[in-house]
Amino acid sequence: MEILSSNNVKVKTWQKYHIKKHRDKDNKFLIEGEHLIQEALKVNCVEVILIRKGVNTKFDHSQIIMVSDEVMRKLSKNVSLVDVIAVCHKIKYQQNKEERVIFLDDVQDPGNVGTIIRSAHSFGFDCVYLSKASADMYNEKTIRSTQGALFHIRIETLDILDKIVALKAEGCIVYATALTNAVGLSSIDKTSDSVALVFGNEGVGVSKEVIQLCDQSVFVEMSTFESLNVGIAAGICMYEFRK
Amino acid sequence: MEILSSNNVKVKTWQKYHIKKHRDKDNKFLIEGEHLIQEALKVNCVEVILIRKGVNTKFDHSQIIMVSDEVMRKLSKNVSLVDVIAVCHKIKYQQNKEERVIFLDDVQDPGNVGTIIRSAHSFGFDCVYLSKASADMYNEKTIRSTQGALFHIRIETLDILDKIVALKAEGCIVYATALTNAVGLSSIDKTSDSVALVFGNEGVGVSKEVIQLCDQSVFVEMSTFESLNVGIAAGICMYEFRK
Repeated sequence: MEILSSNNVKVKTWQKYHIKKHRDKDNKFLIEGEHLIQEALKVNCVEVILIRKGVNTKFDHSQIIMVSDEVMRKLSKNVSLVDVIAVCHKIKYQQNKEERVIFLDDVQDPGNVGTIIRSAHSFGFDCVYLSKASADMYNEKTIRSTQGALFHIRIETLDILDKIVALKAEGCIVYATALTNAVGLSSIDKTSDSVALVFGNEGVGVSKEVIQLCDQSVFVEMSTFESLNVGIAAGICMYEFRK
Repeated sequence: MEILSSNNVKVKTWQKYHIKKHRDKDNKFLIEGEHLIQEALKVNCVEVILIRKGVNTKFDHSQIIMVSDEVMRKLSKNVSLVDVIAVCHKIKYQQNKEERVIFLDDVQDPGNVGTIIRSAHSFGFDCVYLSKASADMYNEKTIRSTQGALFHIRIETLDILDKIVALKAEGCIVYATALTNAVGLSSIDKTSDSVALVFGNEGVGVSKEVIQLCDQSVFVEMSTFESLNVGIAAGICMYEFRK
């Protein structure tokens, strides 16, 4: 099968998935590039694979459509022409363990959210919970920055205050990253089996009400009184708490 | 003084500083936003400050020009309209200490280079040396990601092979980050006064010839066999080697 016109009704529908509202309505999202599609295939969330006509790429999938450069340009967020795009169903995670949890409290940059998801997977965390004002996990930039990790670690957008209360009730120790009234990361006892780390917004950090709920605030020790990118701070904390 | 037309000859010259070739020719670059300009003023590299007409911002500088929205849009790389832009001379660093050094071997993403510069400053490194194929330190995205750290830590683009040889001759211990034949970061002795860390390209890592020159390869321990963003890996290593 092939689609050559960018006015095709399916193309118009898929293009809308650049916008969160439409992704949420249809429970679908787009991914670009061979690596991400291979990762998505592992968890069976690929609905259709679109391959640019003339490109010699093979995928083991029942729904493959060849498309024109024009269609590819309409569906892609990349400045250069991409060879392959997939339309996916939103991911259904199997894993329900939540002994090692990352919370993002209004982290707004999709690149930061994606990088943190990638690090969380690498350092053996079970899930990443996003506050409602954090960047969407299905935003194209978020997905790209995860390098496919979002298919393998559970991610959910939820009310993080409620979830922190629930986890604490089950014995999880919850650390907020903050600069005031905080203990240095290297001094924190890291032996607890159940731990959660909260990282905050790029401008204002973790919100006061979240900090008050947490067991302890922790800071990343620095040589000069400067600031760190939230993705870097998160990577350092996760490394220190690695399993 | 004011400039209202985006066809003004000065505006045309400044706009060229979006391109490396022109920055290098004139030894100048552009920065956007109040925070970066305040940092640049501390090291006296600001030549002219352009303020959007109608904006109420005060700077202590002899060369201030009010400009139209049209001029601002032409000079800015930001999607939303910015209030203030400065034309700067390239930075002349005073500091010549090189006991704690970061090398970037073809790190290509300006966001990664900028973030690493920011972390290097925060963790007390003396300088960041960029290979010639790394992203330009004066690229607008690099500068933005440094959050102003580039004005305070020495950065230089040079032949990193030559520099590694020279530093080793002075007793500096040089570590390459790599995945094969490498020792875990947590096992490395970190007591040496003079140390250099080398981080590599996003796709291929540190080049073989650089690895061969280094004293030891080091890897960041992970729970699953996954990969880390180079900015994150660098942040973790620098934290572990913090002064």
